[in-house]
Amino acid sequence: MEFPSKLIENAVGELAKLPGIGRKTALRLTLHLLKAETEATSSLAEALAKMRFEITYCQTCHNISDTEECSICANKLRDHSMVCVVSDIRDVIAIENTGQYKGVYHVLGGVISPIEGIGPSDLHIDTLLTRIPESEIKEIILAISPTMEGDTTAFFLSRKLREFPDVHISTIARGIPMGGELEYADEITLGRSIVERTRQAK
Amino acid sequence: MEFPSKLIENAVGELAKLPGIGRKTALRLTLHLLKAETEATSSLAEALAKMRFEITYCQTCHNISDTEECSICANKLRDHSMVCVVSDIRDVIAIENTGQYKGVYHVLGGVISPIEGIGPSDLHIDTLLTRIPESEIKEIILAISPTMEGDTTAFFLSRKLREFPDVHISTIARGIPMGGELEYADEITLGRSIVERTRQAK
Repeated sequence: MEFPSKLIENAVGELAKLPGIGRKTALRLTLHLLKAETEATSSLAEALAKMRFEITYCQTCHNISDTEECSICANKLRDHSMVCVVSDIRDVIAIENTGQYKGVYHVLGGVISPIEGIGPSDLHIDTLLTRIPESEIKEIILAISPTMEGDTTAFFLSRKLREFPDVHISTIARGIPMGGELEYADEITLGRSIVERTRQAK
Repeated sequence: MEFPSKLIENAVGELAKLPGIGRKTALRLTLHLLKAETEATSSLAEALAKMRFEITYCQTCHNISDTEECSICANKLRDHSMVCVVSDIRDVIAIENTGQYKGVYHVLGGVISPIEGIGPSDLHIDTLLTRIPESEIKEIILAISPTMEGDTTAFFLSRKLREFPDVHISTIARGIPMGGELEYADEITLGRSIVERTRQAK
């Protein structure tokens, strides 16, 4: 695709670097910004730059934060003896949106992936291990996606957590999602949901 | 969706204002930028702001341009007696990419749309009418999308162009697209493609 203007070409090129945005979508977004008020573009550009350059991470749980301690860690009403270990900030947002969890988090910053060259030392595992005795943590919930890499990371973590015999370790429940049809569930999920069945209250 | 950081919230909010980008996609893009090098964000933000604030429009054809005269109008090798009238810059890019057109353009900047409050005076029609005698234009090709608004605009333009009886007026050919199946074509297109059949060379 050739553009009549270098400025357009640069903007399209930069937008097309974002995941899931191709050159046609990038052009559509660029022309949308061109048609809109100039303020729309300047506030977008400013918000992105400000976000990238001013963001800090919570020193305790590595969640994104505007301050040294994130709002979850700073919240005295939350249960600080229960830590939910997740791979990504997106997972924190997803779990927070359920409104079902009142403990705190620990963001690993990824999962172990030899193909992408991510080893255990690239993740925030050390700070989790030093945090356990310091903060008198009683339960660790491993809420890591059940993919190949996620399971490897969970396995690695549970081996490391053997150092702390008093800490309960649990994983989020696997099973048929709400509204899911049994016949379309994969065999492993269905099998696990039978083995790990929960007893109903009478 | 609640975010642990105001900076993230602003960035997501600004991205989600773009057409076709919802809050989930905006969050994915934001977290992608957070993971990438800081340069990725600064060059994106700069490219967008620069594009919006430094872009100019060609004074002759209203195409986007880095200079007062766009590269197409400035090209002496093109046929300046033939003007292709389009509604949008995107159409210029699309036609240019075919490599089949050697004339110049005139970008209206939209189509007549009473619902959106766009009347003939909001479009670059006056400059087209003054351009015709000045540049000794011989043919005008109306390449406007065959929608309700597009057809209204084309009708309005052809009425206005009656002022110039020496100028040939044509529209782009309508018909079955290449690779299109006859049975799936709508009746109007199929009907027109039979009425406006082209004679094959023997």
